[in-house]
Amino acid sequence: MNNTFGKLFCVTSFGESHGLAVGCVVDGCPAGIELNEEDIQKELDKRKPGSGIAGTKRNESDAIKILSGVFEGKTTGTPIALITFNEDQKSRDYSNIKAVFRPGHADFTYEMKYGIRDYRGGGRSSARETLARVAAGAIAKKVLAKEGIKVMAFVKELAGVPCENYSQKDIESIYETELRMPDKTAEKRASEKIKEAIKEKDSVGGIIEVIAKGVPAGFGEPVYGKLSAEIASALIGINAAKGVEIGSGFKCAKMKGSEHNDTITSENKKIKFLTNNAGGILGGISTGEDIVARVAFKPLASIAQKQKTINKDLKNIEIEIAGRHDVSVCPRAVPVVEAMLALVLVNALLEQKARK
Amino acid sequence: MNNTFGKLFCVTSFGESHGLAVGCVVDGCPAGIELNEEDIQKELDKRKPGSGIAGTKRNESDAIKILSGVFEGKTTGTPIALITFNEDQKSRDYSNIKAVFRPGHADFTYEMKYGIRDYRGGGRSSARETLARVAAGAIAKKVLAKEGIKVMAFVKELAGVPCENYSQKDIESIYETELRMPDKTAEKRASEKIKEAIKEKDSVGGIIEVIAKGVPAGFGEPVYGKLSAEIASALIGINAAKGVEIGSGFKCAKMKGSEHNDTITSENKKIKFLTNNAGGILGGISTGEDIVARVAFKPLASIAQKQKTINKDLKNIEIEIAGRHDVSVCPRAVPVVEAMLALVLVNALLEQKARK
Amino acid sequence: MNNTFGKLFCVTSFGESHGLAVGCVVDGCPAGIELNEEDIQKELDKRKPGSGIAGTKRNESDAIKILSGVFEGKTTGTPIALITFNEDQKSRDYSNIKAVFRPGHADFTYEMKYGIRDYRGGGRSSARETLARVAAGAIAKKVLAKEGIKVMAFVKELAGVPCENYSQKDIESIYETELRMPDKTAEKRASEKIKEAIKEKDSVGGIIEVIAKGVPAGFGEPVYGKLSAEIASALIGINAAKGVEIGSGFKCAKMKGSEHNDTITSENKKIKFLTNNAGGILGGISTGEDIVARVAFKPLASIAQKQKTINKDLKNIEIEIAGRHDVSVCPRAVPVVEAMLALVLVNALLEQKARK
Amino acid sequence: MNNTFGKLFCVTSFGESHGLAVGCVVDGCPAGIELNEEDIQKELDKRKPGSGIAGTKRNESDAIKILSGVFEGKTTGTPIALITFNEDQKSRDYSNIKAVFRPGHADFTYEMKYGIRDYRGGGRSSARETLARVAAGAIAKKVLAKEGIKVMAFVKELAGVPCENYSQKDIESIYETELRMPDKTAEKRASEKIKEAIKEKDSVGGIIEVIAKGVPAGFGEPVYGKLSAEIASALIGINAAKGVEIGSGFKCAKMKGSEHNDTITSENKKIKFLTNNAGGILGGISTGEDIVARVAFKPLASIAQKQKTINKDLKNIEIEIAGRHDVSVCPRAVPVVEAMLALVLVNALLEQKARK
Repeated sequence: MNNTFGKLFCVTSFGESHGLAVGCVVDGCPAGIELNEEDIQKELDKRKPGSGIAGTKRNESDAIKILSGVFEGKTTGTPIALITFNEDQKSRDYSNIKAVFRPGHADFTYEMKYGIRDYRGGGRSSARETLARVAAGAIAKKVLAKEGIKVMAFVKELAGVPCENYSQKDIESIYETELRMPDKTAEKRASEKIKEAIKEKDSVGGIIEVIAKGVPAGFGEPVYGKLSAEIASALIGINAAKGVEIGSGFKCAKMKGSEHNDTITSENKKIKFLTNNAGGILGGISTGEDIVARVAFKPLASIAQKQKTINKDLKNIEIEIAGRHDVSVCPRAVPVVEAMLALVLVNALLEQKARK
Repeated sequence: MNNTFGKLFCVTSFGESHGLAVGCVVDGCPAGIELNEEDIQKELDKRKPGSGIAGTKRNESDAIKILSGVFEGKTTGTPIALITFNEDQKSRDYSNIKAVFRPGHADFTYEMKYGIRDYRGGGRSSARETLARVAAGAIAKKVLAKEGIKVMAFVKELAGVPCENYSQKDIESIYETELRMPDKTAEKRASEKIKEAIKEKDSVGGIIEVIAKGVPAGFGEPVYGKLSAEIASALIGINAAKGVEIGSGFKCAKMKGSEHNDTITSENKKIKFLTNNAGGILGGISTGEDIVARVAFKPLASIAQKQKTINKDLKNIEIEIAGRHDVSVCPRAVPVVEAMLALVLVNALLEQKARK
Repeated sequence: MNNTFGKLFCVTSFGESHGLAVGCVVDGCPAGIELNEEDIQKELDKRKPGSGIAGTKRNESDAIKILSGVFEGKTTGTPIALITFNEDQKSRDYSNIKAVFRPGHADFTYEMKYGIRDYRGGGRSSARETLARVAAGAIAKKVLAKEGIKVMAFVKELAGVPCENYSQKDIESIYETELRMPDKTAEKRASEKIKEAIKEKDSVGGIIEVIAKGVPAGFGEPVYGKLSAEIASALIGINAAKGVEIGSGFKCAKMKGSEHNDTITSENKKIKFLTNNAGGILGGISTGEDIVARVAFKPLASIAQKQKTINKDLKNIEIEIAGRHDVSVCPRAVPVVEAMLALVLVNALLEQKARK
Repeated sequence: MNNTFGKLFCVTSFGESHGLAVGCVVDGCPAGIELNEEDIQKELDKRKPGSGIAGTKRNESDAIKILSGVFEGKTTGTPIALITFNEDQKSRDYSNIKAVFRPGHADFTYEMKYGIRDYRGGGRSSARETLARVAAGAIAKKVLAKEGIKVMAFVKELAGVPCENYSQKDIESIYETELRMPDKTAEKRASEKIKEAIKEKDSVGGIIEVIAKGVPAGFGEPVYGKLSAEIASALIGINAAKGVEIGSGFKCAKMKGSEHNDTITSENKKIKFLTNNAGGILGGISTGEDIVARVAFKPLASIAQKQKTINKDLKNIEIEIAGRHDVSVCPRAVPVVEAMLALVLVNALLEQKARK
């Protein structure tokens, strides 16, 4: 069940980068939700290649098709199969990477694990698989919206440039920006850094922050199904992610208890936390405050520089990876991060309903 | 299944801090493994309260009992039930915390989720539950040892003081130190910081690093059961953890691809990575290099200072939490972190066997 | 997870026949259910050995202890650990069965699977494990009772003697009978057959029927989690069961569609099926009518006759199994069958809640 | 996860009878298995409508397409997506069944469960879904074949006519017969009964037997994942099934222990059971003998006779279901039964590998 995400709202994803199709089956979506292809396409378009300077232009339409589970415009409670046929998969020449383990890629580990791998464009390990996540996440978002829950992500730091001055409104219109950064000044500086990296045939890393608003207190299942654990698994499982944190995150290590504890207050019977170091989660259960998480993405492994590595015969060689390369995964990963958090939350929602 | 960890080597934990007992059932342990109570007790003793200045002295013997699944000194393949009876659970006076939501604790969220909570010493949300994890982890370690896999953790940073100078040997003898820090100088400085915190009735945070040696290439199950995702879930699920990272972790965000990519080389058909920014994982699958992860722990929420909060009637109040308080969870969490990584790896081991 | 039953209300069982203890952990029970040991003990007493002529008298008190998950008389939503210590486990002489594969028992298959087995009284394969099922089932019944759902089983056929004349009231007072048969005449005849079998040092088989009343339409999850599939798995998984059927069951094979189809009618907007060949399930989902299932139990494998078999050295030998033997599993299996159906239904209930 | 079958070799099925497509995703298939569309098509062709007198002729090509998980003719260990587009789905007139609950069908229960249903040809509850099972089963069979395991089913009884005289060879060439009955005389008599039923606008029930040869001792996972429990769940979960039994099955209820116990013997260190009442399973674990199970299918609910029922407004009405109707599900269900047992066994195989 390793290609299935979630216990009650379950997404089973399939497909390779340059195979016939990429898609998923969503099982466990409540019946009666209005859903059409446009709802999903809208989300998919947010992760399209070529959004901004950090990505390259490709000719992928990523047109999504609903194959089942929707009848007369509504979900029926049966599995919703979603599919995108790969248009951009004509027989290219892969002879340069076929027998080579590209540094920083999963070529080597797939070969070690399975003894075989689809080497075309990364195969299953390609970020193209995240298309399935975003498609499923689009449905999750619709279910969450009915409960007043909204998930928003943005690039918090890119190429070492952090966002520092921005408002909630800037976050809400993040898909109108080029680099998915809510701080215009930071975006400009990051843009410069990216141009440098392009010149140097290099790539850059970054951090995405994601916020969920409207999550009621009580989501999450101790002790091994904690909301924090589910979020960490979901976010670090995204391609190229190397770290994840909730609320104060790694900063907490340098803090004192008196500083970190969020004071709970009450006004007219309405509960409010004065700070949110908890990131909306205490003991693995949501507090009712915003859920806040951050995920660190490594610089993309595919760079145009000459690199040392080995081939399948275990010979030391040098390679140059030709073709188009994104400079950073971050801008395109923003909707993927949103989708994964939405999938975690919709599962927590359904599970909490079962308990009541 | 939220109190069960693992898919093939499954640990189901039970028990509250001040209930009758804490324990777990380990289902799926291979048959024929030599196992006795001493094997488990040895690990449990590493997490005993009162190890060092950061913890307080308590009278808990934590004597473990094997109730099933072991016959004539060997595991039989049937469930192994492990139990520790709480000796230290005499009727204390909980009237001060019974109707109060302590800041930074799970009191509030448990109440919101379940509408009821065992308020004695944190109940289920208490770190006492980690006893079950360490007990199960002790069995996992025995299975892993047969495959040449070893897991070692240590306090990497405490109260803002990082460990910088230490050797592999220092890590291996970590349980002979007071604060579980392999760098003597750092330990001394951290010890000072802790004494200050005690004076200020405060607590401190820290970071634990964990390393697994001997893990062969091929462990981990893409795309939602990635080794990184399983590790992140397991580690951030430990009480008080707020962040987790693999290899380069959050530092990767400021790195370039040319710098981050680990060069693969081969000498006499033996594969070696020149660096290990990957932390032993590429594409969610182990590379054969050391698995390296870090987890950030917040300063303990229980501090002796007067704090503002609310009670169950939603009145704003002030509380002082009497009694013994640890200053940092870190020293005692070291064997817990080891246990959780061991549980992740034993599951990955069994799953990889199934695939062959 | 093979010793865990259920997806939302999860029972993890442990313990061997002559080990230290038998018990289980119930995870996922809703919070706020009133529960004490007496609630569970009452159910356990129904499966006690020595009930009636078909069973032998043993000195087992089976006193159940709740170790966790209940606070001030109510469930808290955390795992409920239940345990019974084996009092009757003094060091007996097992030399006669230690190296022998008893016919009809699991001795041979456990040895083949695990390469080791706890030979004392059947070890894990003993029906003593069903104690854990009944204990967990007692909790499930309390949850179901709040929804107006009640589960009742009885011996439908014993030693070839079927029950033919009985009322709903007879079923409801089944635990006042000796053989758990609601038809007095049949019980008398079965009693004679059993006496004969005792004389012949033999054992007899039988069929148990179970009925659930009050199950609303809509329980069960197509297509692989059908209510029928969950019931079949739960019932045939009971020790000594060889067949299971729903509603018309195997008789359906000889029927015609016009005869088998249950006519649906409506009177004053109340829906009623005129017959119940479906056994309360259509397309894997409950119809609102009584759930009706039957399970066939083989004659007990332990008989006092001399039997041919082999030993661990693969030598052909003859054995006589000394000691006390039940003649039929059926009377004692009645509460076990009830428990398993209750566990299926409580899971279906929680899952259906999640969908709404 | 209710549309996913299996824990290690996981099949997630999707699609409605008259939707765009039916298919499945197979996750967990070992890498390196040779696989092409022809392998799967061959199996699918065995369940085609219109095989023999019991089925009606339809124009479904059921051409299967592999969308992922296979590269250069071999499985890669990644999810294998299989799809069949519904060619026969042009806009028919469903006004007659749209608002009606057909007796014996799942129309009523789907409506009760989900509050909405795809009424076109049964939607998700249609036997067309079994196409996905057979497709996935074809892959399972290939994996099992490498271990010397073979699964064969046949119609044991049809319209009340049992097969009595047949050989193993007759079973092996079952797909050359019209009604999938290995006993020619029985087939002839059953054929007469079916002709009668057609005349009477009625349908007939039957029993399918399935045998697995070559299963080694040790498959199956006590106590809730017993091989018998997995088989029972898999087989009774097939559309129209009402009962399932292993080995002696329901006959065991009338047998004595001395008669039912299978004597184990040894000759030249080779173990052999003299009888196989166990059906190849003791204590939930395979014995090494043939696995034998039977499943009872009700007469098809769709009959051409006028029937009483209710509509969505809860009015009592009369309906006549127009169109083509099969007379019995049995002949077409034979490959489905095989597929489901193959899926159970391949999971048991992988799980047993993990334990070693």
